[in-house]
Amino acid sequence: MAGKAKEMVESWSFLDTVESNFRPLVVIELAKGTKEETIEWFTKRIVDKKANGGAQLLIKPLVTENGVENIYLVGASHLRLLLGAETVGLVKECSDNSMRTFTYSSRKTFKHFADDNHNFLTMAECQYIIKHELENLRAKDEKMIPGYPQAKLYPGKSIVRRLLTSGILVQIFPLHDREELKKLCHSWYGRVKIGYQPLDDIRCYFGETIALYFGFLEYFTFALIPMAVIGIPYYMFAWEDYDKYVMFATFNLLWSTVILEVWKRICAILTYRWGTLLMKRQFEEPRPGFHGVLGINPVTGREEPVYSSFKRQLRIYLVSLPFVCLCLYFSLYVMMIYFDLEQWALDYHEENESNFSNLMLYVPSIIYAVVIEIMNRIYRYAAEFLTSWENHRLESSYQNHLILKVLVFNFLNCFASLFYIAFVLFDMKLLRQSLATLLITSQILNQFAESLLPYWLQKRYNRKMKKRMCSKKTDMDLSLAEQVNMEKEMGTYLGTFDDYLELFLQFGYVSLFSCVYPLAAVFAVLNNITEIYSDALKMCRVYKRPFAEPTANIGVWQLAFETMSVISVVTNCVLIGMSPEVDALFPDSKIDLVLTVALVEHLLLAIKFIMAFVIPDKPRDIQMKLAKLEFESLEALKQQQMQLAAESLEE
Amino acid sequence: MAGKAKEMVESWSFLDTVESNFRPLVVIELAKGTKEETIEWFTKRIVDKKANGGAQLLIKPLVTENGVENIYLVGASHLRLLLGAETVGLVKECSDNSMRTFTYSSRKTFKHFADDNHNFLTMAECQYIIKHELENLRAKDEKMIPGYPQAKLYPGKSIVRRLLTSGILVQIFPLHDREELKKLCHSWYGRVKIGYQPLDDIRCYFGETIALYFGFLEYFTFALIPMAVIGIPYYMFAWEDYDKYVMFATFNLLWSTVILEVWKRICAILTYRWGTLLMKRQFEEPRPGFHGVLGINPVTGREEPVYSSFKRQLRIYLVSLPFVCLCLYFSLYVMMIYFDLEQWALDYHEENESNFSNLMLYVPSIIYAVVIEIMNRIYRYAAEFLTSWENHRLESSYQNHLILKVLVFNFLNCFASLFYIAFVLFDMKLLRQSLATLLITSQILNQFAESLLPYWLQKRYNRKMKKRMCSKKTDMDLSLAEQVNMEKEMGTYLGTFDDYLELFLQFGYVSLFSCVYPLAAVFAVLNNITEIYSDALKMCRVYKRPFAEPTANIGVWQLAFETMSVISVVTNCVLIGMSPEVDALFPDSKIDLVLTVALVEHLLLAIKFIMAFVIPDKPRDIQMKLAKLEFESLEALKQQQMQLAAESLEE
Repeated sequence: MAGKAKEMVESWSFLDTVESNFRPLVVIELAKGTKEETIEWFTKRIVDKKANGGAQLLIKPLVTENGVENIYLVGASHLRLLLGAETVGLVKECSDNSMRTFTYSSRKTFKHFADDNHNFLTMAECQYIIKHELENLRAKDEKMIPGYPQAKLYPGKSIVRRLLTSGILVQIFPLHDREELKKLCHSWYGRVKIGYQPLDDIRCYFGETIALYFGFLEYFTFALIPMAVIGIPYYMFAWEDYDKYVMFATFNLLWSTVILEVWKRICAILTYRWGTLLMKRQFEEPRPGFHGVLGINPVTGREEPVYSSFKRQLRIYLVSLPFVCLCLYFSLYVMMIYFDLEQWALDYHEENESNFSNLMLYVPSIIYAVVIEIMNRIYRYAAEFLTSWENHRLESSYQNHLILKVLVFNFLNCFASLFYIAFVLFDMKLLRQSLATLLITSQILNQFAESLLPYWLQKRYNRKMKKRMCSKKTDMDLSLAEQVNMEKEMGTYLGTFDDYLELFLQFGYVSLFSCVYPLAAVFAVLNNITEIYSDALKMCRVYKRPFAEPTANIGVWQLAFETMSVISVVTNCVLIGMSPEVDALFPDSKIDLVLTVALVEHLLLAIKFIMAFVIPDKPRDIQMKLAKLEFESLEALKQQQMQLAAESLEE
Repeated sequence: MAGKAKEMVESWSFLDTVESNFRPLVVIELAKGTKEETIEWFTKRIVDKKANGGAQLLIKPLVTENGVENIYLVGASHLRLLLGAETVGLVKECSDNSMRTFTYSSRKTFKHFADDNHNFLTMAECQYIIKHELENLRAKDEKMIPGYPQAKLYPGKSIVRRLLTSGILVQIFPLHDREELKKLCHSWYGRVKIGYQPLDDIRCYFGETIALYFGFLEYFTFALIPMAVIGIPYYMFAWEDYDKYVMFATFNLLWSTVILEVWKRICAILTYRWGTLLMKRQFEEPRPGFHGVLGINPVTGREEPVYSSFKRQLRIYLVSLPFVCLCLYFSLYVMMIYFDLEQWALDYHEENESNFSNLMLYVPSIIYAVVIEIMNRIYRYAAEFLTSWENHRLESSYQNHLILKVLVFNFLNCFASLFYIAFVLFDMKLLRQSLATLLITSQILNQFAESLLPYWLQKRYNRKMKKRMCSKKTDMDLSLAEQVNMEKEMGTYLGTFDDYLELFLQFGYVSLFSCVYPLAAVFAVLNNITEIYSDALKMCRVYKRPFAEPTANIGVWQLAFETMSVISVVTNCVLIGMSPEVDALFPDSKIDLVLTVALVEHLLLAIKFIMAFVIPDKPRDIQMKLAKLEFESLEALKQQQMQLAAESLEE
């Protein structure tokens, strides 16, 4: 094995005559015992010239004290990366401060570009380019992966995806940059400070999707502060007057519309600066897990697996839908058990009144909160399994179906008991208590399960590793090998889904019943401040570095938050209508009360929609910049046509 | 003058060595007494080469028996038109049935293209191209229009627009094609038949905007038929049971959502076939009436008039808004007078009951309907004046502000009395009567004012003209001259705004109170059938031929119709809740009734939004075709980059 490795070390360098220093960017881990011929074929395809259908990257086996362990480091020459940046359509800042799509031929016009400046592309961008190039390494005339006859290939199939699905390729992940990471950690969460997160640095290191999540988290926390500040006196002085309630609720409802609209503008500002607002959408390839019989894709005209949409619909409506309904039913069933428990605790408290029994009153809520969290997590796995079984062709379609399933269940699971208490039991005291317990318990559980537990596990593992390593530190390359070995064992960050979901549920707790429990916003703010720190810790210390993903907005979550804000108008109006203070205002006619509430609700909804319509999604200066770009490209096209026309007419 | 004309006739032909037959497409009418130097300069710019900043079109003065009358005919060579088609970005069908943006270099791949096939571009397309070229004829270093020192120019200003605003250019309009028009009339409304309109022929002759209006009118009429059919028995048998009412209203509400969503799909099918779905938006130039001090446009970097957005906001909020509110107040005041009249008629009927007095009951409604129509028309002019005074830079912004002003006023003006009767007076009988009278009277008035009156005036004028002409028919060219002279006196079609507005108000009458007056849909269907004929007549016989306008959808009207359909959910739910039959179902508790109605309303609204979200806006095959085009363009780009990359890496 070691001889082979030596040969490889030589083999990567002969292609790379320009760069003398190989910078490892991405790690490829193959399964133990992968056949020699497979490794040879795969590495040859990676280093092969573009013209021969290769990726023209650099690859080097990782040499540790145990010899070669089927771990490879991938890098690329500076020129290759620049050409790759053009292929993926990166948008960078020009010398005149405008954002433009990078092309190799116009490279001189970009800010900070110099032929010897290897930092023109950030490390995250380089890793994204390498990932893109690896994923676009496609089978030519191979019918199968050499050495694995059961792993079929067809022309145009992504080799890396086939290797992943057949288990030969264990994982591909980008390497951390220890130095950069240290700097980032320091400015991000290293010191306790009041101030903004270094979003641009986060974006440079982790990419746009993650930076946008942290941007949203920060923005959302700031946006909740006014609600929290106004909420505190309501709690402290137990203000229960009619006007104050209505004022608070109205403020909340309009405020939540404003913050969601303003977020779109801030998002546009951020993503314009990062270049992703202008980035053209890439053509979506089938997702790795998609399977079917080989057919012709009507769009591309290429041979690829085809799966009948009818069969998928059958799976969705005959299996997934009933399953989701069953889960919803089960969730409601659990809720009823909780109410029994609640009743039992109340009875117990009434029979033997003591401090202990008073404390016991909170126990059912806490148990229920824990059960909700557990059910959410189990359901999450089931939903993932089901959605993947539905065999969606595109990742986006898979994501939409998954998000819809998860959102519906989580919404019902978390809020059904509160709706029941509010609108069936009419017990405002229990609602307040239940809401508080659910909110706080779920926040504590989440913080623990999401960051602290993995962090502690990781730390323990690292200590063990280090001890083992340090004892025989001889090889010059060990520091890198040590890093790779440590990072490959770290957990994989599965995307921002869970983080957004947590915020979404929190937004529900804060807004749905805000007029009953104004303190919810205070807890949300407090939670989010620690959340920023624990999420930052999670990203930097607990998980493998994720690949950067360019994105221009928070996608479907914007819609989810807006829907929640519409629902909260309805719930709050009804809650206010039910309060005894408001009731007392209409002593003669309950109908007038209901009609007034309905009228106010419709007015609020109308104002919400008008506000959402009137507030532009992009700030004026971004609009101008986009218009300018569009004008320039149209003008260039026109110039081209004019020339052609002049020539044609001259003839 | 005649000598000058002779010179011109010679001058146009020397440029056109390819075409021997000049086909007049567009007519330019200059003001009587326009200075010679102005005419010379203007015609020179039109025929001048593209390279010199001209339009390189052909122009020929119209010679009538009175000599030259400052009327010019504009045409273009076949080659010029093809190049123009590329400039405006026309999308045509290829030989492989896909739609592609036309370029001169790829002309051979398009269906029906042949170098000698002069029908490859329809006449409407040719006229659109000529209009575009004329409007894009821009001042170079002229400081003013020669001969008119007060008509200032600056580099880049559209010459035609300046000529129009300074009154030197009276009008530009495209010529009718008598033969084509005859064919179109015959297939469109020439014979009474059950069947679809020849939308593709209408589109070829009048362009996409008008064809889409007729497509929408036809679709909407068909869509109303189920509502009309279900509505008839309700009226005939006076069904007033609770379940039947609710069923009808529920059907209507969901149906109106479905038809609006399905229209989007049909619209996509039509505009894909016509190529406008794929057409790229052109960069919007300032509208002709826009004025301001000369400054630098931040988007284009060009010198052009600039008007502060703050001043415009001031005009909107300090003048327009109060004016609109005043108009709304006046409209409500007129409404109250109508109710006084109504009361008076009722008193009269009660005092001396007779057939006459029974008839008198309808008089106030009829008078009110006429007054509403008159107010709508007067307000329309005021709104146009105000919006133009607001000095919007772009035509689209002007249109949006105008449409918003007009819609709000028309909505209140037409429906305020009905809302008042329904929700303040609770008089369902009066509501039904009032609704019927308003609907029918407005339909009759509209048909008369819109088509029949202009048609009759036009016919009378034509007869006079013909008599005068026929007496001395000698010149070979007279037939064309006669046509031009006739057409230039015809009214100008001001766009589809009024036609859509009429449909919008009709939709309001049908849907807002549909459960009270199911027969409204029947009247709407009947009206629309005659509307198709009278609008067709109007387009073909009454008005000048309008320039074709490419469009991909019905724009803001889709939103207006959808908003109306949301409002109608609320009104219908309330109406049903108020009906005595439903009232009787909740004998004990009125609150339960109101709550049930509110619940049903929210459910319906939720279903509406979910339906609108779930139904895709484009049919699957159109989506596929669009995806295919996108894929191809991405693929071409990638190929280009790959080549570049391979070359760069070879070096």
